[in-house]
Amino acid sequence: MVRSKTSIRVRYAETDMMGIVYHSRYLPWLECARIQLLDDLGCPYREMEEMGVRLPVVEVNCRYRQPARFDDRIVVVAEVREMPRARIQIFYQVKKESGELLCEATTLHGFMNLENRPCRPPEKLRAAFATHFTLR
Amino acid sequence: MVRSKTSIRVRYAETDMMGIVYHSRYLPWLECARIQLLDDLGCPYREMEEMGVRLPVVEVNCRYRQPARFDDRIVVVAEVREMPRARIQIFYQVKKESGELLCEATTLHGFMNLENRPCRPPEKLRAAFATHFTLR
Amino acid sequence: MVRSKTSIRVRYAETDMMGIVYHSRYLPWLECARIQLLDDLGCPYREMEEMGVRLPVVEVNCRYRQPARFDDRIVVVAEVREMPRARIQIFYQVKKESGELLCEATTLHGFMNLENRPCRPPEKLRAAFATHFTLR
Amino acid sequence: MVRSKTSIRVRYAETDMMGIVYHSRYLPWLECARIQLLDDLGCPYREMEEMGVRLPVVEVNCRYRQPARFDDRIVVVAEVREMPRARIQIFYQVKKESGELLCEATTLHGFMNLENRPCRPPEKLRAAFATHFTLR
Repeated sequence: MVRSKTSIRVRYAETDMMGIVYHSRYLPWLECARIQLLDDLGCPYREMEEMGVRLPVVEVNCRYRQPARFDDRIVVVAEVREMPRARIQIFYQVKKESGELLCEATTLHGFMNLENRPCRPPEKLRAAFATHFTLR
Repeated sequence: MVRSKTSIRVRYAETDMMGIVYHSRYLPWLECARIQLLDDLGCPYREMEEMGVRLPVVEVNCRYRQPARFDDRIVVVAEVREMPRARIQIFYQVKKESGELLCEATTLHGFMNLENRPCRPPEKLRAAFATHFTLR
Repeated sequence: MVRSKTSIRVRYAETDMMGIVYHSRYLPWLECARIQLLDDLGCPYREMEEMGVRLPVVEVNCRYRQPARFDDRIVVVAEVREMPRARIQIFYQVKKESGELLCEATTLHGFMNLENRPCRPPEKLRAAFATHFTLR
Repeated sequence: MVRSKTSIRVRYAETDMMGIVYHSRYLPWLECARIQLLDDLGCPYREMEEMGVRLPVVEVNCRYRQPARFDDRIVVVAEVREMPRARIQIFYQVKKESGELLCEATTLHGFMNLENRPCRPPEKLRAAFATHFTLR
């Protein structure tokens, strides 16, 4: 398993008139955690795109447990639980710093080349993941 | 079944550097379709909030099939397939005007009062839905 | 003078916890009005980008008079008051359908080629503007 | 003069299909810097709102010098140059960590009570500002 953590401070811009964070605003937070995870693996996403590999989102699922509010200090945990092949699935927990769970989510991504065709993950990324997953 | 349609023109602001619409931007489009559905039922959401009932999003699931692009003319179809009780589930199809399917989604919402406690749907809304669902 | 009008319905996603539209959300509305103005001139922005000319925003100025609120029906008027050369300035009024003024704004844009160098407006656009401005 | 600094990492969600940050996304960054400035003064905005005083944006002016890009590490400097009275004006510089200037901006805000009427700044905030401005 590969796991990363990112800290976020909730912006006023992310709230809505219900006084809580609008549900779509969590998705960029998941992105932040994903970017951090790739950084922690030594394969920054910016580099990957420069090498011609992209990771568009194919699927998103979010369950909102408790609302996030303006100025909350949030932690987003991202986990990859299986060796990614043509696709990569990521699990997230969005929590308050106090540990209170706000949202659970998953995203599924496909590795795509610049012609928008499925491709294999970059070798560097595969190698980085391989050190975390027991080969069977 | 209750079904509604909304037309949307993709904004430049909704794209990202992949040249396509960023995945979180579909969620406000689903909102537009939901708002239209409540309008079509004669129970505008603005009125419902003024009566003290809110519909926060409890769950979102999106499957992205094809990318939407700047200036595309989009149609979002929203459907309620079962008589809502404490919760309401909505199914969406995001399509191009040509009919091409871009995204399928569902949202789940809880009826909440101003103290953020679950409550029954407003009588007017229940009556409006009841005319669409055969009582068994 | 060239003038265009666009209608917008305020999304819940555009509000903030003050119960009104967050100030940055007006900027995509100005974009909608600008896109409409180029359409009305017969030179859609999408076409212009496909021809290799872009119009990045160089300057924005907004004065917020009255708040916009969820579900408001908004009209954005965009005007070009002078023949554009290397740059184009656009004036906006954001109003309620009732006529109440919500926001006055200007944007300044530079015509840029794909190498991000200043360039002349496309001939088609210059011709379209020329029919609206008396040559002196 | 009162001055504060905030660090921001550019999100993919903040880019557009021009490959750069969409111009409206700078406004929430200015907000972050403003929030930090109030923190540094010992008067967090969240507290101020809880005390019934709000700071809606009355005016925004931005000059975009160079584009910000995905993953850039940005610093936003916010300055208050005059003792605020019924209104407060804030000056911003958005820079790369390398020092390169990306955007200069100002915002003007009015102190408002919960009835949306102009009011004086909270005493605590006035006292905090007073220590920074020579009384004449």
